[in-house]
Amino acid sequence: MLSIEKYQKEFLSFLGDYSVVKEPKGLYEPIEYILGLGGKRLRPVLTLMTTDIFGGHYKEALHAALGVEVFHNFTLVHDDIMDDAPLRRGKVTVHEKWDTNTGILSGDAMLIMAYQLFENYPPEIFKALTKLFSKTAIEVCEGQQYDVDFEIRNDVTIPEYLRMIEYKTSVLVATAMKMGTIIAGASEADQNSIYEFGRNLGIAFQLQDDYLDAFGNPENFGKQVGGDIIENKKTYLYLKALEYGSDNERERLIHLFNNETNKTEEKVFVVKELFKSTGASVATKQAVHDYTNKAFSVLETLNISDDRKELLKAFGASLMNRSV
Amino acid sequence: MLSIEKYQKEFLSFLGDYSVVKEPKGLYEPIEYILGLGGKRLRPVLTLMTTDIFGGHYKEALHAALGVEVFHNFTLVHDDIMDDAPLRRGKVTVHEKWDTNTGILSGDAMLIMAYQLFENYPPEIFKALTKLFSKTAIEVCEGQQYDVDFEIRNDVTIPEYLRMIEYKTSVLVATAMKMGTIIAGASEADQNSIYEFGRNLGIAFQLQDDYLDAFGNPENFGKQVGGDIIENKKTYLYLKALEYGSDNERERLIHLFNNETNKTEEKVFVVKELFKSTGASVATKQAVHDYTNKAFSVLETLNISDDRKELLKAFGASLMNRSV
Repeated sequence: MLSIEKYQKEFLSFLGDYSVVKEPKGLYEPIEYILGLGGKRLRPVLTLMTTDIFGGHYKEALHAALGVEVFHNFTLVHDDIMDDAPLRRGKVTVHEKWDTNTGILSGDAMLIMAYQLFENYPPEIFKALTKLFSKTAIEVCEGQQYDVDFEIRNDVTIPEYLRMIEYKTSVLVATAMKMGTIIAGASEADQNSIYEFGRNLGIAFQLQDDYLDAFGNPENFGKQVGGDIIENKKTYLYLKALEYGSDNERERLIHLFNNETNKTEEKVFVVKELFKSTGASVATKQAVHDYTNKAFSVLETLNISDDRKELLKAFGASLMNRSV
Repeated sequence: MLSIEKYQKEFLSFLGDYSVVKEPKGLYEPIEYILGLGGKRLRPVLTLMTTDIFGGHYKEALHAALGVEVFHNFTLVHDDIMDDAPLRRGKVTVHEKWDTNTGILSGDAMLIMAYQLFENYPPEIFKALTKLFSKTAIEVCEGQQYDVDFEIRNDVTIPEYLRMIEYKTSVLVATAMKMGTIIAGASEADQNSIYEFGRNLGIAFQLQDDYLDAFGNPENFGKQVGGDIIENKKTYLYLKALEYGSDNERERLIHLFNNETNKTEEKVFVVKELFKSTGASVATKQAVHDYTNKAFSVLETLNISDDRKELLKAFGASLMNRSV
C-alpha cells in the first residue's frame, strides 16, 4: 500500500509516458494540454488504491486509472464549451485557446481513447470495465443534461437535485473505485459495496461543496465564496431554504435569485442569512454528515481486513476534511 | 441470404424497437430525431449481409449493426455543428433544431450508446468488436481533423488527401463489414480481406463522389452539381489538376479557388474545363476504377463459395453504379 502522494506520483509518471502528441497535431495537442493542466488526480488515485486494498497490484490498474482520468478530462472540455467557461484550473480552456470545433473534436477523441485504455485487460475484465464505464459515462451525460434543465426550471425537487449531483459527480468516483475491485478480482458483493461507498462519499463531497461555497473559509476554499449565489445556482442550500422557509423567506429568496443586481456583496450576505434562518445551512451540514456516515457504514460489510477498511475510512475522512 | 431491401427492413424494425425516448428528454429526443431522419442505412446493412455471407445469421449482428449506425449518426451531429450546416437529409440539423450544446451532449451520449450496443456479445467477441470500433472511431476523428486542416493548407498532397477520405469515410464501411465476419466467426485472414474490400470500395466511392460532384448528371446526383467547386473544396479532381496542369492552368485554378466571385456558374464552367484539359477528370475516373478493382481482387482470396463472392461483387458494383 502506498501513500496518496505516492499513488499520485506513480500515476503522473504513467500519464507522462502516455502523452505523446501524434498527427494530426490539431487533434492531439489540445488533449496533451488539458491532461497536463494538473488537478488532484483523485479518481485515478482511487482506482490504484482500491486495487491494492483488494489484493491486486496498483501497477495492473494504471491503464484503467488513466481511462477514468482521460474521460473526466473529456467531460471538462465539453462542459467548458457548454458553460462558455474561459478558465479551467487557472488556465485558458481548450475552446478558448483553440476554438469550439477543436474542443468538440478533441473531446470526442478523448472519449474514445478512454475506451482504448481498457484494451490492456483480458476479455472478461475488459468487458466488465467497459460495461461499467459506459453505464457511468451515460449517467454523466444525463447529469449534465439535468443540470442544464434545472437552470430554467423553478420546481426542482430535492430528490431530483440529488440524482443530478449523483450522476454528474459521484458515479464516476464510485466507478473509479469499483474498477479497482474488478481488476483485483474482488467478489461481486465487495465490488458493489465499494461502489456504494464511492457513490455516497461523492454525494457527501458535492453537498459539502455546496455548503462551503456559501459558508467556507475564503482562505481554504479554492473558489470564490458566494459564487453559487451570485450565479443564482439552485444548490442543495437553496432548495432546502425553499422547502423550510416561511412564505416570506421563500418569496425573498426567489426574488433575489430571479432579478439582476449589481450589489452582489449585499445579495450574498442576505442569501446566506436566509440559508441560516430557514435552517437550510444546518440541514445541508446534516446531509453531508449523513451521506458520509452512509459511506462509512458500507465499509463494515467489506470482506477485507480492518486495517484496510481504516485506510478507506481515513481517505474518506481526509476528503471530507474532518477527523474520523 | 436476404436482399438489400430486406436487410434494410429488418434493420429499421430493430431500430424502431431500440428507439425509446427516456429521461432526460432534452438528451434523448435529439437522438431519436437524428436516428429517424432516414438515409440508406448502408453501413448496418453491410454488417448484416456480411454476417450471413460468412455463415452466421444476420439476427446475431443487429446490435453491432445498430452500433455502427448510431456511431455514424453521432459523427453527423458533431460534424454538422463544426460545419455550421443548417440541413441534413433535407431536414433541420440537431444543433439548429435545438442548440449547439444539445448537439454536443446528445452526440456524446450517442458515442457511448454505440459502445453499449456491443455489450450484447460474449467477452471475446465484445472485445474484438470494441477494439476494432475504437480504432476506427479515432481514425474518423483524425480524418475530420485533416479535413479541417486542409481547408487552410495550400500544399495538400494526393497521399494526404487519400488518407483523409480513407479515415473520414471508408474505414467505417470496412469496419461495418469486418464486424460481420467477427460475429460469424470467420478466419482472421477473411476478416482482414473483407476489411480491405470495404476500405478500397469506400475510397472508390468517395473518389466517385468527387467526380460526380463536378461531372454528374444533375438528375441522378443527390447534391448540387458543382457544389465542391463553389465551396473551393480541394478534392481529388482539384489536386490532380494542380499536379498535371501547366503553370498557366495551375495559376488560373489557384486564382479561381482563392478569390470570391458571384459569377458561380461561370466559375463552375471554367473549373470543369480545367479539370478536363489538365487530365484530372480522366485521372479521377481511372482512380475510381483502380480502387474498385482493387476491392474486387481482394474478394478472390476469400474462403467462401463463389456465389457468395458474387453477392459481394454485385453489391460493390451497385454501390458504384456500374455493371460488373
